[in-house]
Amino acid sequence: MRRIISFKNSPPSFLSYAAVGGYEEGRGPLGEKFDFLDPTDRFGMKTWEKAEGEMGRLALNLALNKNNISPSNLDALFAGDLENQCVASSNGLYSFGIPYIGLYSACSTLTEGLLLLSSLIFSQGISTGAVVTTSHNSAAERQFRNPIEYGGQRTPTAQWTATASGAFILSKGGKVKIIEAMIGKIVDGLTKDASNMGAAMARAAFDTVYNYFSLSNISPRDIDLIVTGDLGKVGSLIFEELMSKELPNINARHLDCGNLLYNEDNADIHSGASGCGCSASVLASHFLPELERGTYKNILFMSTGALMSPSSVMQGHTILGITPLIRITTDD
Amino acid sequence: MRRIISFKNSPPSFLSYAAVGGYEEGRGPLGEKFDFLDPTDRFGMKTWEKAEGEMGRLALNLALNKNNISPSNLDALFAGDLENQCVASSNGLYSFGIPYIGLYSACSTLTEGLLLLSSLIFSQGISTGAVVTTSHNSAAERQFRNPIEYGGQRTPTAQWTATASGAFILSKGGKVKIIEAMIGKIVDGLTKDASNMGAAMARAAFDTVYNYFSLSNISPRDIDLIVTGDLGKVGSLIFEELMSKELPNINARHLDCGNLLYNEDNADIHSGASGCGCSASVLASHFLPELERGTYKNILFMSTGALMSPSSVMQGHTILGITPLIRITTDD
Repeated sequence: MRRIISFKNSPPSFLSYAAVGGYEEGRGPLGEKFDFLDPTDRFGMKTWEKAEGEMGRLALNLALNKNNISPSNLDALFAGDLENQCVASSNGLYSFGIPYIGLYSACSTLTEGLLLLSSLIFSQGISTGAVVTTSHNSAAERQFRNPIEYGGQRTPTAQWTATASGAFILSKGGKVKIIEAMIGKIVDGLTKDASNMGAAMARAAFDTVYNYFSLSNISPRDIDLIVTGDLGKVGSLIFEELMSKELPNINARHLDCGNLLYNEDNADIHSGASGCGCSASVLASHFLPELERGTYKNILFMSTGALMSPSSVMQGHTILGITPLIRITTDD
Repeated sequence: MRRIISFKNSPPSFLSYAAVGGYEEGRGPLGEKFDFLDPTDRFGMKTWEKAEGEMGRLALNLALNKNNISPSNLDALFAGDLENQCVASSNGLYSFGIPYIGLYSACSTLTEGLLLLSSLIFSQGISTGAVVTTSHNSAAERQFRNPIEYGGQRTPTAQWTATASGAFILSKGGKVKIIEAMIGKIVDGLTKDASNMGAAMARAAFDTVYNYFSLSNISPRDIDLIVTGDLGKVGSLIFEELMSKELPNINARHLDCGNLLYNEDNADIHSGASGCGCSASVLASHFLPELERGTYKNILFMSTGALMSPSSVMQGHTILGITPLIRITTDD
């Protein structure tokens, strides 16, 4: 079984990107770095579901405009979200007229999309393309748990689905490159607790990192940061405990997007951020600018996903985790 | 904008495949060609949702066993279905331990998956991989419309979601090759009628075929068949009417999987078959064997998808269509 996919000969790179967020994202530590914030969370739309689609549309528009790229120059658009049948992505993005690939890999969709788009650009099947992922707290709450009007009490392990989107345009020739990728294996999270997604995903994240370093010829000390998507506080603890037995020197370089998006003292957030928009908006608002600035040169970036539905949990399935990986670098 | 992706230099090919179906599929004209049929539609499981996952598992197992392939020889597994959050695929397939890419492109997921897997094999990112898609009538009915126990009356334009799955293993070097692909654009179906998916998808199918022949250097007479996924009777009429104005000589070579899966006189079926398992099971049970037998040499294969959810329809969105394309050939 071949695991690590190399793009080193002719790597795709980030041509442009943008982050969009709502109220909680705006008052978080990365708020000022977002390209657009709507403190009403509504984005001018009448329903939360349409607001989520509009966020994706805005994020892609901002990414296009930053670098004066026309939608007609994009050969493919990879997108996904958490809404049933991923309608936020299709309804929000269809007006661009870009050939479309719909994805579902829960909150790991961003990294899955970057991996696939990178493969198509590397093989010269296409020249330029984009990945957009979104999540909306109010759309997710009423679909997965309860409508927010219900005021349900949340457990301390629960995470806050980010109202956020990130859009990324890739092509060859840029400074910040994707040079390797690894498709994630589905790993049983060994829990049925839909209010503890971090725990359900931690083992999948560990599986990917552990296998990457086992199979790769680079050592952990060649990497500046290992970034997970949305393990949150609880999931990060479990991930780091698993890592401490196998690759203990990694933990000091581990950051989780779910722990970076909101302020520590924000009581509503509980165990941190989650959602397809979490790792997307943190990558676009924070890590890519820092890579361009030279703060980091080599990052393993791994959005984390929990593959479940309300029905599958009610029918007794454990929650499955998945963690695809990309290596982002500014090295030549 | 680059549209047609060529794999001609070193094309991926079908190494193995299998089709699994339920009661209605068994008594249809292709029934004898299926690899496995369960007339109870239950596949030994207690819920329809788990039955759907089990169908995908069975289909992949059958495809592996036919050619004596071990799951550990597969570098990637692309999968998707219609259940919320695509849990049939993740729960049904995770036990194989194959690196996993989750897709959602409604009933067009099979062709999207074959396109992506072909790209990864072509670029040598991976060597061998599989695509599996599923749908289950009873799981789809209670999720998208009403539980079957309700006995709701269906309109004549409604289609019957196939209880079926197809699994396909691809690698280089075989006889039946995928030599071109085109990612579909999302096209507004201009209807809000969730009981007329054929109409919603027909314009997207036309858009893809029309653009393929406009941009390709092959002529319609080089193609033996143009196969659409699940336009059904109503959608096929609209598709052929649109085609008759632009490429009239195509219609005689148009077949739709949704019109092939069930008997014409089966009153329950109404406008034909649909679902991610429809084009998958018809490709595996009928078209690939006929290509191997030499009946056809060149097929354009296009699963058709309707991008909508019950919520999006209730919130007033029109239904969007999408149609990715692959060209399958036995020519050298």
